[in-house]
Amino acid sequence: MRLSRFFMPILKENPREAEIVSHRLMLRSGMIRQQGAGSFSWLPLGKRVLDKVNQIIREEQNRAGAQEILMPTIQSADLWRESGRYDDYGKEMLRITDRHDRELLYGPTNEEMVTDIFRSYVKSYKDLPLNLYHIQWKFRDEVRPRFGVMRSREFLMKDAYSFDLDYDGAKAAYNRMFVAYLRTFARMGLNSIPMRADTGPIGGDLSHEFIILASTGESEVFCDRAFLQMEVPDENVNFSDDAEIAGIVEKWTTPYAATDEMHEEAEWSKVKGDDQLSARGIEVGHIFHFGTKYSEPMGASVTGPDGQEHLVSMGSYGIGPSRLLAAIIEASHDENGIIWPEAVAPFQVALINMKVGDEACDGACETLYDELTAAGIEVLYDDTDQRAGSKFATADLIGLPWQVIVGPRGVKAGEAEIKNRRTGEREALPLGDVTKRLGA
Amino acid sequence: MRLSRFFMPILKENPREAEIVSHRLMLRSGMIRQQGAGSFSWLPLGKRVLDKVNQIIREEQNRAGAQEILMPTIQSADLWRESGRYDDYGKEMLRITDRHDRELLYGPTNEEMVTDIFRSYVKSYKDLPLNLYHIQWKFRDEVRPRFGVMRSREFLMKDAYSFDLDYDGAKAAYNRMFVAYLRTFARMGLNSIPMRADTGPIGGDLSHEFIILASTGESEVFCDRAFLQMEVPDENVNFSDDAEIAGIVEKWTTPYAATDEMHEEAEWSKVKGDDQLSARGIEVGHIFHFGTKYSEPMGASVTGPDGQEHLVSMGSYGIGPSRLLAAIIEASHDENGIIWPEAVAPFQVALINMKVGDEACDGACETLYDELTAAGIEVLYDDTDQRAGSKFATADLIGLPWQVIVGPRGVKAGEAEIKNRRTGEREALPLGDVTKRLGA
Repeated sequence: MRLSRFFMPILKENPREAEIVSHRLMLRSGMIRQQGAGSFSWLPLGKRVLDKVNQIIREEQNRAGAQEILMPTIQSADLWRESGRYDDYGKEMLRITDRHDRELLYGPTNEEMVTDIFRSYVKSYKDLPLNLYHIQWKFRDEVRPRFGVMRSREFLMKDAYSFDLDYDGAKAAYNRMFVAYLRTFARMGLNSIPMRADTGPIGGDLSHEFIILASTGESEVFCDRAFLQMEVPDENVNFSDDAEIAGIVEKWTTPYAATDEMHEEAEWSKVKGDDQLSARGIEVGHIFHFGTKYSEPMGASVTGPDGQEHLVSMGSYGIGPSRLLAAIIEASHDENGIIWPEAVAPFQVALINMKVGDEACDGACETLYDELTAAGIEVLYDDTDQRAGSKFATADLIGLPWQVIVGPRGVKAGEAEIKNRRTGEREALPLGDVTKRLGA
Repeated sequence: MRLSRFFMPILKENPREAEIVSHRLMLRSGMIRQQGAGSFSWLPLGKRVLDKVNQIIREEQNRAGAQEILMPTIQSADLWRESGRYDDYGKEMLRITDRHDRELLYGPTNEEMVTDIFRSYVKSYKDLPLNLYHIQWKFRDEVRPRFGVMRSREFLMKDAYSFDLDYDGAKAAYNRMFVAYLRTFARMGLNSIPMRADTGPIGGDLSHEFIILASTGESEVFCDRAFLQMEVPDENVNFSDDAEIAGIVEKWTTPYAATDEMHEEAEWSKVKGDDQLSARGIEVGHIFHFGTKYSEPMGASVTGPDGQEHLVSMGSYGIGPSRLLAAIIEASHDENGIIWPEAVAPFQVALINMKVGDEACDGACETLYDELTAAGIEVLYDDTDQRAGSKFATADLIGLPWQVIVGPRGVKAGEAEIKNRRTGEREALPLGDVTKRLGA
């Protein structure tokens, strides 16, 4: 993509409304634009990252056996009356009346609708386990939306719902999502730490928040340093093997880890002093087993191997991709801008032409652009007539993993400079070696 | 994908509410489920087709120079007051009030919001041409939603908006979308015919509906048979060459073509009798130049090369992917079910094991499944314990382009049978040749 054609409105000034760094950097780099209270448009740069985040989430959901569907944003109030939540849900629910005076709502979540889908079709234990997910817009009418896409009113959510014959099946389904989440966040370059979360009236211990550490995080968290060294299962992990998956969950739930809310001093004091890590974190995912909370009032049951009807045991599993994207920036930036992990970077390479109009520079850049593109590397080619200093600032701000800098002196020597955005390391390379170097 | 694990709830009976064939087949094949009046969930089979349709639309929009963004579904009433449409738009607009009594609406379209984005950032003619599109849910509160996803209330729309300095630029932008639409529908296996549409108070001739022919189409259309032979530009078409693109548009707008609404008997009578094709059609896209209709009230202008402010000249370009999917089925089915064009088929191959549990059949199927998958061919493997007759009926109903049938007798002879869903042709092949045959 040529920057001269790419709609990426960089802001020179720090927007006053942005209280946190991710919000500031997303506005400044032209990734998003605020359209109203807690409502944002995704501009081309932001949309590219959002697509990559969604794609990783999708691949890991599929790998773990979940199936993608797509439910509508607008739901009927009657459905929510069946579970009792239409009256219980407070002012965060956006309630709507249509032209025929039917009561509707903009879905803040989809337990009721997916349970309704399930009960319409699934009648036998033979069709279980089943896990259905979608990636769809939600709306929660927060009193005070803020922090950009970190706490907006209209936001994207991946919500998965599992259906099983009994608690053991539900626990295995829960474990699969647990491991899928570890892999999802690791692929995005994040250290995520599963922390036990409140199960409220449901009870039990099957609720975890996945927290990433970031000095600008929203809440205080406490965990054993051991987590930082633990290995995330690779792509050959066998999701059909309940015991293998349970073993991984066991390993990842043994060291101490707790959010402020769930922190227990007595347990914490058992962690060796050197291993105590108290830091700030951001919640990027939440998984939750809730048993028959919806299947009972809504009559979602299957015939079991015993010939009897069994209410299905359910769980839900959420990731907010729009929020997650902001969290990645909170965890990965410096004073000059964003530092994208490779897997979610909007482009891999910023190709910077320091002297547009100079025949040698233009020629070298066009050749590199074609070579890199042909090698499957995504390039944003800065072919604008901005000053070199401004180009460097933009490249640092938008945080692509690599910068390839082409100037008159270098070209004369047959060289380009490559810069690693994260480490700042620079290296001069023969023009002909750049693509090979970056394609590795 | 193994059918035993795939959530595809086939209905044996014809659903009574379905008045048209696409609605009936989408419900019967478990592609969609109705959630309320004009509101549908996309189940896994339907979601796969929707993704493919969206991807083709996206590739062709990008090729023509449009850039993808993503605007929110909920919009502020104030924005629509600027254009005057908040009061003009009738009861089809879903109006909403939030907890702070602010007036919102569920976007039925996005001219106002995209114009607002444009005016916030773009100040100079040097940043033109610009075309921004998104694929996002819309809501129109139809009095009587019907025909499934063909006329639903919540529906997906690809809407693109072009911004240019003057009419000539806008016309070139219009032409690019015209050609992109020809390519988009052709890639989905559809013959689309651009027909002049009403421009109302805007005037001029820059408004076309793209119509596909289907005997079950919603409206009567009249055109020259010449369209059926015309070649759609291939992927090397040069969207940077305004003259080349204008030439293609010229060619595609010369023969007679009109919807019932725009039909002129005098012009029609000039078409040779043999060439007169009067048929039924379905609108699958609409492109429209509307000049300064929004830029004027909303103050969207740029500085021109003359140093003066110019209101930008705009156009909008819509395709409804959910509706389009139904239109494909209307145009491509038989009495046994859907016949998917290759490019949008949810899977390429139905692999049918006629005797699950038979060691030889199971072994041959597993090998074929692995081979086909490794060759990048999407396979739905029917490994269920249904009767063979029921498996054949399901495969015909869901309309995958190829069926690979593995039965005990064939396996003994080292053969499988392949069936082309469209032609019905069957062919016995050595097991080892199946993948090569289908991968070609």
